[in-house]
Amino acid sequence: MQARSESLRLAGKRIVFVPTMGYLHEGHLNLMREGRKIGDSLVVSIFVNPTQFGPGEDYEKYPRDFKRDEELASQVGADIVFYPTVDEMYPANYQTYVTVEGVTLNLCGQSRPIHFRGVATVCAKLFNIVKPHAAVFGKKDFQQLVTIRRMVADLNMDLEIHGMDTTREPDGLAMSSRNVYLKDGEREAALSLSRGLKIAQGLYDSGEREAAVIIEAVKNHISSYDTNIIDYVKICDTETLEDIDQIERESVIALAVKVGLPRLIDNYVFGEPLAIP
Amino acid sequence: MQARSESLRLAGKRIVFVPTMGYLHEGHLNLMREGRKIGDSLVVSIFVNPTQFGPGEDYEKYPRDFKRDEELASQVGADIVFYPTVDEMYPANYQTYVTVEGVTLNLCGQSRPIHFRGVATVCAKLFNIVKPHAAVFGKKDFQQLVTIRRMVADLNMDLEIHGMDTTREPDGLAMSSRNVYLKDGEREAALSLSRGLKIAQGLYDSGEREAAVIIEAVKNHISSYDTNIIDYVKICDTETLEDIDQIERESVIALAVKVGLPRLIDNYVFGEPLAIP
Repeated sequence: MQARSESLRLAGKRIVFVPTMGYLHEGHLNLMREGRKIGDSLVVSIFVNPTQFGPGEDYEKYPRDFKRDEELASQVGADIVFYPTVDEMYPANYQTYVTVEGVTLNLCGQSRPIHFRGVATVCAKLFNIVKPHAAVFGKKDFQQLVTIRRMVADLNMDLEIHGMDTTREPDGLAMSSRNVYLKDGEREAALSLSRGLKIAQGLYDSGEREAAVIIEAVKNHISSYDTNIIDYVKICDTETLEDIDQIERESVIALAVKVGLPRLIDNYVFGEPLAIP
Repeated sequence: MQARSESLRLAGKRIVFVPTMGYLHEGHLNLMREGRKIGDSLVVSIFVNPTQFGPGEDYEKYPRDFKRDEELASQVGADIVFYPTVDEMYPANYQTYVTVEGVTLNLCGQSRPIHFRGVATVCAKLFNIVKPHAAVFGKKDFQQLVTIRRMVADLNMDLEIHGMDTTREPDGLAMSSRNVYLKDGEREAALSLSRGLKIAQGLYDSGEREAAVIIEAVKNHISSYDTNIIDYVKICDTETLEDIDQIERESVIALAVKVGLPRLIDNYVFGEPLAIP
């Protein structure tokens, strides 16, 4: 892969990279369609990265379907599908990690303490292997996007990071490979995340700027479903991801909720459009 | 710098990089001469990196002489001398670090707990800026060389790391920018490091394989000088840098000694030649 990328670069090709953990859905495919537009060579990686899963999380159970993934990636124009093995990525005696500090402390960083170290490390590795001019990430994983942007800037990595709007089901549910875990009765409860964001948008648009008021309304809606266990509902500065009391600068409301088995996340940047019915 | 390096790569030039903290001596110049031989474009960086100095260490006092350094680097054939400012390298809100675990725990890692995190981080940054095909490091900083090799392998960085033999004064003292701190009476005491290595070599060559016996003999010699405070004298596996009891695999004896003000280091890989009178 590295040799192919170096050849492509020397031939003047612009490489665009979409890293994924596979089990592709329309959200991933939209990232690839965007990638197809902004570069000459589209590289998609499929790698369920063990170092970003904590003990007791769903690394073993994370859904996988490589054959289908490869077909879907090709259909939307991927030139190369890169799918390393765990042993290739983390051989015996592996011992190097990339840690981004400030922006990983809040939100998912609180309940998943090693998650972003794993994400930053595997992205650093993949960027060095694939050597892209640009990489495309989804805004659904908002903290991941902020973390990667921070790493790229801090470590002087020579690539552009593109953030793409969250792709949603027609009813508003954010697409996620983990939605496959939802049982019948839980699908409705899962909608409370996107509907909660809609409530937040409504309050904001009607002039509310007090974070606590918006958070309270969203929590009330989400916890009206018995299946739901809220991990967090927070309003943060979009750059630092620190909690804020008053919405004055660009801010994001971010949610993490366990809906039955899966832990789902969603978010909304105040003032932006929101494709939720 | 990054744009220049990208142009050089696209033009098919092989970039060789020698990162330094400046105050150049013959040891640095030998790295550059080697770099000159193995590439088309020789880039030398001069940057006293604050993140690899702990509290109470000599960051502020570290010797600097940029004008002389630039002249010396040019004389031995550097095409580009890169000297970023601290604010450019670590702007406000900087928060990303590269940590290499296993190989940084022993030796200097014990008395300088954040040192190798700083070294790995700044090298990752410089490699991303300079985009070299190869980088040249001295074996005098043996643990640094092992750490950088480990980081490059673990993070899939696409460059070769060349390790160069330590350059010594005619009497055997390893060249170091910190030798400038040695006062008159301490110069002789500082020689006890290289002479200690000579003692270790003699014992090894006469068949001694017990690490404790060799260490004891070296410590006795070094501590025969009143000015000397031993930080460590250890014998380690050259790959893992873990202590060993018996010299069976490739092993290194590594020393760190405070000689008056400066803390000096030196090392010897058993079985290799040693240019000490």
